[in-house]
Amino acid sequence: MVAITRTDIDNMDKLYRINLINSCSGYKSANLIGTQSNEGNTNVAVFSSVVHLGSNPPLLGFITRPAVVPRDTYENIKETGFYTINHIHQEITEDAHHTSAKYPKGVSEFDQTALKTNYKDNFSAPFVNNCHVQIGMRYVEEYNLQINETILVIGEIEKLYINDKILETDGFINLAKAKTATINGLDAYTIPEQSVRYPYQRPK
Amino acid sequence: MVAITRTDIDNMDKLYRINLINSCSGYKSANLIGTQSNEGNTNVAVFSSVVHLGSNPPLLGFITRPAVVPRDTYENIKETGFYTINHIHQEITEDAHHTSAKYPKGVSEFDQTALKTNYKDNFSAPFVNNCHVQIGMRYVEEYNLQINETILVIGEIEKLYINDKILETDGFINLAKAKTATINGLDAYTIPEQSVRYPYQRPK
Repeated sequence: MVAITRTDIDNMDKLYRINLINSCSGYKSANLIGTQSNEGNTNVAVFSSVVHLGSNPPLLGFITRPAVVPRDTYENIKETGFYTINHIHQEITEDAHHTSAKYPKGVSEFDQTALKTNYKDNFSAPFVNNCHVQIGMRYVEEYNLQINETILVIGEIEKLYINDKILETDGFINLAKAKTATINGLDAYTIPEQSVRYPYQRPK
Repeated sequence: MVAITRTDIDNMDKLYRINLINSCSGYKSANLIGTQSNEGNTNVAVFSSVVHLGSNPPLLGFITRPAVVPRDTYENIKETGFYTINHIHQEITEDAHHTSAKYPKGVSEFDQTALKTNYKDNFSAPFVNNCHVQIGMRYVEEYNLQINETILVIGEIEKLYINDKILETDGFINLAKAKTATINGLDAYTIPEQSVRYPYQRPK
């Protein structure tokens, strides 16, 4: 085992540290967040920090750092109150990753990639076409994490579209069947095969 | 596509809703959090909500719901200020999942499974033996998410132990080489194979 102390981390080359610490949390969710400004400018960006917060009410959170990264996603959410979360699958990982490029405000990643918008059921934010799980979100609240000036953005699920081939009879969404991606660190994508479900556990 | 509205979600059978909404965020990180009370009682529990918050300082967060689940992990962290995060790998998924059973306070999951404690370098909380990534964490702050009474617990990385076979020259931890698990929903575990790394993206 390599033993790394906090002092080692603080003294690391910046890129080495970013690679290392970004790999530390384990595999990450791989999602595209779609938004649209009140003026009609669309935006889509890859996020690896979407996290389940609760099922009743149905809540998802994600982490953003408006002071550092281009903030179109965050600004559009604050402006309109709505956004979409779309699972990244095998066929779109390369385009999904390209949305991390720092385009100027006003340039839509939907125009710079093969990703296409998908509007439906009067939901104001664009879904990403052909994603097997598409979630329409309504902004609820946010927390400013004082220690490093990131923001936890929390939203409620308003709409949920799921490819019927991956939805099982007990509500389980089979991500392996959808060839859903997961992210390792900053830049590695992998498509897990078949998963194994374990029963509900009780004390022995 | 199956179209599900918010009203549908609110009216669902509880177990169906839990399976569905827990699958919605995509793949989740698979970690064991190890703690020890001041009296010396150990605890280890599976968490699928560990999320990267930042690299400088190196911060990880996780979500807990003390009002609903057995709260040994949270109480021990508040009592001592220290905890460990350990990546779940292929050989321990079954034991890791068993730590979700609701044992009475005072019963250690280290005694009810084949998971073993690993103490080192005077770090007060127990690591999980043989995990390929073991992280010593110091509690920093927490946020009470008012909308559903969950808590985001934030800690700084103090110690980091990594199997040298999975640490690459640029700091990337190769989770596939470690046969690290990822979680789908509440109860499905999968071990991704080889990942693909993409280069840093710039506007075209």
